[in-house]
Amino acid sequence: MDEFALIRQYFQSLQRDSSMCGVSVGIGDDCAVLNVPPDQQLVVSIDTLVEGTHFLPDTPAEQLAWRLLGASVSDLAAMGATPAWLTLALTLPHADESWVSSFSAALSDATQEYKIQLVGGDTTRGPLTLTAQVHGFVQTGCALLRSGAKSGDLVCVTGTLGDSRAGLESLLSNGSTEKNPHNSPSAENMEYLRQRFYRPLPRISTGKLIAPFASSCIDISDGLLGDLAHILEHSRVGAQINPAALPLSDALQAFTDAGTAQKWALTGGEDFELCFTVPAEQWGNLQTQLQYHKVPVTAIGAICDKPGLQLFQAGEWCSVEANGYKHF
Amino acid sequence: MDEFALIRQYFQSLQRDSSMCGVSVGIGDDCAVLNVPPDQQLVVSIDTLVEGTHFLPDTPAEQLAWRLLGASVSDLAAMGATPAWLTLALTLPHADESWVSSFSAALSDATQEYKIQLVGGDTTRGPLTLTAQVHGFVQTGCALLRSGAKSGDLVCVTGTLGDSRAGLESLLSNGSTEKNPHNSPSAENMEYLRQRFYRPLPRISTGKLIAPFASSCIDISDGLLGDLAHILEHSRVGAQINPAALPLSDALQAFTDAGTAQKWALTGGEDFELCFTVPAEQWGNLQTQLQYHKVPVTAIGAICDKPGLQLFQAGEWCSVEANGYKHF
Repeated sequence: MDEFALIRQYFQSLQRDSSMCGVSVGIGDDCAVLNVPPDQQLVVSIDTLVEGTHFLPDTPAEQLAWRLLGASVSDLAAMGATPAWLTLALTLPHADESWVSSFSAALSDATQEYKIQLVGGDTTRGPLTLTAQVHGFVQTGCALLRSGAKSGDLVCVTGTLGDSRAGLESLLSNGSTEKNPHNSPSAENMEYLRQRFYRPLPRISTGKLIAPFASSCIDISDGLLGDLAHILEHSRVGAQINPAALPLSDALQAFTDAGTAQKWALTGGEDFELCFTVPAEQWGNLQTQLQYHKVPVTAIGAICDKPGLQLFQAGEWCSVEANGYKHF
Repeated sequence: MDEFALIRQYFQSLQRDSSMCGVSVGIGDDCAVLNVPPDQQLVVSIDTLVEGTHFLPDTPAEQLAWRLLGASVSDLAAMGATPAWLTLALTLPHADESWVSSFSAALSDATQEYKIQLVGGDTTRGPLTLTAQVHGFVQTGCALLRSGAKSGDLVCVTGTLGDSRAGLESLLSNGSTEKNPHNSPSAENMEYLRQRFYRPLPRISTGKLIAPFASSCIDISDGLLGDLAHILEHSRVGAQINPAALPLSDALQAFTDAGTAQKWALTGGEDFELCFTVPAEQWGNLQTQLQYHKVPVTAIGAICDKPGLQLFQAGEWCSVEANGYKHF
């Protein structure tokens, strides 16, 4: 069997019962042929992970599969969309059967977890680079955009922030806790933080839950300040954020000092939680829904007319730059 | 302006009047939001070009834009589809404004030429790698697949074959004609062959024209023999091809000897012409259409029940391997 056939075989095995999810033609023709349900809009996003830029060399293939798909599906979650289809462009230094086998097995688990169907791809030779395009659906006119925030809306985030950055730091320092030498994080905490880095859990169901209430939404990939700044820019508003209100995990607080934890929560990136705004009069109804579905959401500030971002620090509001994580 | 903003600015300027082509939300949100017309199916394909694998280092940015888009849109042509939307994942070694400026200007021209709209993308730092996903429409149930060829169908190709390979050879040898030293190709021929390599012209209108008549279709990206083999595999048939019937351009015949020209036409790859099959009883009607629209199509053989590929050589049919161009 040639190496092309080998890779084809691994990925074709990921195709499940196509008729279930609107796939007329999946992997194997010049294009996939797909059916978008009537009264739904198609939402798409493309994301790339590059070795050395987005992940450390020798990162296990299964972790890359989860991270790639989690980060990509998170963009669908931020639109309030339901995942549908995935295409994959893999650039590999060589056709390594054990790598492809591990990667495709993890991708199979991840696609089942997120209910997304692989429908096509391209495999090429070159420096390790992984690109995923995800496709999903929203009810026509109901996509959650960055542009709807209004003065007075609450600014909310899901889950806890800064964990992914702590997971990365723990990997880079191989477990030592330089920042907080008096504190020795448990193996359990360390594992939790690393999993938050490797296996982000996109907030798919939460995105759909908040869509009828929220006025704007983004997923936190570059860091809270940087991503919130996109909402502010698109909505032509400002925001006041109280850092003391930021949701921090016990694991993060055990891993580092309070100042560093807060900094990572504000700028760390790759948590893949949702940051959204909600009109104050909707907050009660939304909270009822969130509590019923046991979704952790924290209000961390409010939208205001004055442009820019202000943080409440040392008893006063201070303007800050949105210095999120940047690739260039 | 940071470098992110610079790149965003170049690509956002490529967005034309979005309402014209079913784009509710284009570049700039977590996802694009798109409208597939009723009674149409969505067809998608993803393709990657890697420096050193698919193109020579220092290939001008504008040529990469045309080649990437031409090759990608060719997959839509092979389905008989109408191009609609493009997403782009660019991995660049550094944020080089002059490169991005040249690339985006050429991409703008190419997207206008092929009537396809850029709706999203991702720009990352790393070894130069370009991934395009193209999206198009076909009337529901009318996609041209690889799987419909039947014994007795004619095997046809559009345009001329082998030119792209000759263009690449001419670039690699910097214009010298080692294979055919007695023949000195004109500058005009050389330019024609190189353009065939750099700027493949996807057969979009021809794909739509043949769709009602053809029983199967593929675009010639890996080489005629390799691509035809995909039709044979998917359709569970064989084929007999007469190499003497292969359409060769005057420029190719001036560039190299007859044997090499034939070999490149059979296996060269990246011509991005269409190879399709048509039932014999439809051939007359199709020819009328093709002549009316001045589309060059050549019948080069026929589908047979016996599996595999046979070439008519030295007065008899010989079985051959489909050794198309392979990346691994």
